[in-house]
Amino acid sequence: MLKAEIKAEILRDVVEIIQTIVDEVKFNFEEDGLSLKAVDPAHVAMVELSLKKEAFINYEAKDTELGIALNKIDQFLKLSSPSDNVTLEHVDDENRLVLKVNNITQKMPILDTAGMTDPSVPQLDLPINVKILGKHLQTGVKASQNIADHIAISVNKEGFEMFSEEDEDSVKLSISKEELEEIAASEDVRSLFALDYFSNMIKSVDSNKVVTVELGKDYPIKLQFDFADGNGQVMFLLAPRIESA
Amino acid sequence: MLKAEIKAEILRDVVEIIQTIVDEVKFNFEEDGLSLKAVDPAHVAMVELSLKKEAFINYEAKDTELGIALNKIDQFLKLSSPSDNVTLEHVDDENRLVLKVNNITQKMPILDTAGMTDPSVPQLDLPINVKILGKHLQTGVKASQNIADHIAISVNKEGFEMFSEEDEDSVKLSISKEELEEIAASEDVRSLFALDYFSNMIKSVDSNKVVTVELGKDYPIKLQFDFADGNGQVMFLLAPRIESA
Amino acid sequence: MLKAEIKAEILRDVVEIIQTIVDEVKFNFEEDGLSLKAVDPAHVAMVELSLKKEAFINYEAKDTELGIALNKIDQFLKLSSPSDNVTLEHVDDENRLVLKVNNITQKMPILDTAGMTDPSVPQLDLPINVKILGKHLQTGVKASQNIADHIAISVNKEGFEMFSEEDEDSVKLSISKEELEEIAASEDVRSLFALDYFSNMIKSVDSNKVVTVELGKDYPIKLQFDFADGNGQVMFLLAPRIESA
Repeated sequence: MLKAEIKAEILRDVVEIIQTIVDEVKFNFEEDGLSLKAVDPAHVAMVELSLKKEAFINYEAKDTELGIALNKIDQFLKLSSPSDNVTLEHVDDENRLVLKVNNITQKMPILDTAGMTDPSVPQLDLPINVKILGKHLQTGVKASQNIADHIAISVNKEGFEMFSEEDEDSVKLSISKEELEEIAASEDVRSLFALDYFSNMIKSVDSNKVVTVELGKDYPIKLQFDFADGNGQVMFLLAPRIESA
Repeated sequence: MLKAEIKAEILRDVVEIIQTIVDEVKFNFEEDGLSLKAVDPAHVAMVELSLKKEAFINYEAKDTELGIALNKIDQFLKLSSPSDNVTLEHVDDENRLVLKVNNITQKMPILDTAGMTDPSVPQLDLPINVKILGKHLQTGVKASQNIADHIAISVNKEGFEMFSEEDEDSVKLSISKEELEEIAASEDVRSLFALDYFSNMIKSVDSNKVVTVELGKDYPIKLQFDFADGNGQVMFLLAPRIESA
Repeated sequence: MLKAEIKAEILRDVVEIIQTIVDEVKFNFEEDGLSLKAVDPAHVAMVELSLKKEAFINYEAKDTELGIALNKIDQFLKLSSPSDNVTLEHVDDENRLVLKVNNITQKMPILDTAGMTDPSVPQLDLPINVKILGKHLQTGVKASQNIADHIAISVNKEGFEMFSEEDEDSVKLSISKEELEEIAASEDVRSLFALDYFSNMIKSVDSNKVVTVELGKDYPIKLQFDFADGNGQVMFLLAPRIESA
C-alpha cells in the first residue's frame, strides 16, 4: 500500500539520478521512506538512493515494491511545475500506479520486478576522501569531452586533478587543496574511468553542492551527495578502467 | 485591388492558424475584410477564418482572391518584430503580391486558385456547448501525447474531460464545472479524435483565451475563438474517429 | 617564443572571424602583435586579420608561426566566460601550444604549416565606399536566404541595396543615403555574390558596428571592420559571381 504526496521537483531529482544508470527500476516504499538500488546493464556503475519520509508532504506506505519505467514518470512530471504537489497511489494487488498533479491523473503499469536485480553494495575502504563542489567535477568533465573517452582522476599533495589525453591533445583540471572543501589522503592515487559513465553521474549533481569523492588506485570511485534538504542520500559507484601500458 | 497595412503579429496569427490545416490557401479580400476557408488534404479537418477591416491599420480592397503559399508569408514575417507594420499590395492582373516591412520589400507569386476548393461549412446543431480556457486544452493534449495517438473528449455532469489510453497506460485531464467559463449540456457525450490534428489546432490558440467547444456523440468537434482584439474569428471543425469496440 | 594573456572574448572573436573562411590557419605572433591571413579552399573568399599587442593583457612574442585547428581553440573557449583571462604559451621547438583558463590547462598539437598558403592580398582600387551598420547587412542576408542562393549588392543615387530573386520570388533591402553612416560613390554599381559565403562573413560582424563596404562592378567586394576596442582589424574579400544573362 502506498499513498504519498511530494513536491514535483524532488520526484524529478530522484528520476534524474536513477536514469543515469537504468531505464527501469524497483521502487521500495517502506514505512520510513523510499529506497532504490540499481546496476547498469554492463555492471560498470551502481546507484543507491534513499529518501526519508520527511522529504514527503504526506507519506503512508507498507512493503510496496513497484517496478517502474522511469521515462513514464519523467513525461508525467513535464506536465507539472517544480513547486506542484504530486500524489502517488498504489493499492495492493493493483497492477497500476496512479499519479496525480493539478487536474491530471495518469495511470502506469507496474513492471514485473523478477528480472530486476537487487544489487549488493560492496563495502569499500578507500584511502582517499575528498569533498569538492559539483561544479568543479562538471567543468572537468566538460573539458575532457573534447579530448578523449576516458578520464583520469588523481589526488596528490597538490590537490585534486582530472586529466584526459589522446594523441597530442590533453586537458587537465587542477583543484588545489585550498579550493577543496576538505581532503583526507594517506597516499597518492590515480585511477582511470570511462568518461560517458562518469559524465552521466556528474550531470545529476547540483553544481553548488558538495560531493564526497572516495578513491583508491584501480578501485571503484565512490561519489556521495545529498538532496531534498538533506532528506535524500545518493551514492554512485563506478568501476575503474584498466590503464593500457 | 488590395492595399492594406496591418500589425505583423496579427498577420502572423492568421498564418499560424491556417497552417494547422493547409500549406496553400485562397485569401479573399473583400470590401469589409479578409476571409479564408480550407480543408486539409485528407478531409478530416476544416478551418474558417474572418478578419474585419477594423483589424487593419489601413484597408482598401475589392474582390481580390489571392492563392498564397503560407510558408512564404511566414518567412517574410520572421524579418519583422511583432509590433512592426506590414503592408500588403496587389494590383489587379498582376501575378505577384508585394509585402513590405521596414526597409524590406518582398514579392511572391500568386498561385492558381483553380485547384483550391471552396469548402462548404456544414451546419451542425450540437448538444454540448462549453467555454474553456485554451491552456486547459493544451495541457490535455500535452498529457495525451505521451500515451496514445487519439484522444477522447467528453462532457458529463462532473464537467469536461480529455482522456487517452493505450494498453495499461492512461491519462485523464478533468476540468470541473466550476473551472469552466460556461457549460450548456443537455446530455452526456464522448467522442474520439485523432490527436495530431487536434494538437495542431490547439497549438494556434492563445493559452489565456476562452475557446468555445461544441460537441455531439460521434459528431465533429467545433472549436471557436477570436483574435485581433475581437476583430478576428476562427472556427475549426474536426471529424471524429470511430471508436473500436 | 610566445607568452601572452588575453580576454577570452577577444580570442573568441578572432576564432569566429577566421572560421568563416578556414578550419586550420597559421597564427603569426610577431613582436608587435598577431596577424593571420587565409583563403578558403575554393579560393572564393579571403580574410586578413591583425591584432595589436595592445589588445592583450600581457604580450611577449618573437617570430612564432603556429598552425592551429580552430575548433580546438573554440572548444577550449567554451570552458571559459567572456571576461576570463586566457594565457597562451609556446616554447620554441615544442610541438604543442599550451592554453590556460581558470583551473584548466589544455595542450594542443602544432600543425605543419607547409601546406598552409600565405595568400597575397590583391590591391584593389574600388569606386564605391559605403559605411553601413552590421545589422543592415545581416537583415539583408536573412531576407535573401528564403529566396535564392545568390545576392546582388548595388549602390546608386538612392543608396545601398541588397537584392535576391529566383523565379517569381524576390526580396529587396533598401538602405537610403540618409540611413548610411557614409557614402562615396562615383558611379552606379551592382555585383552578384554567393549567398553562403557572404552570409558567413556577415555573421562574424557585431550588429551595431560600422562596416566599410567597397564595391566595383564585377570586382570582389571588400568588407572591413575593427574589433577589440579598435586594436583589431579585419578585412574580408569575396569574389563576384558572373550574372547569367
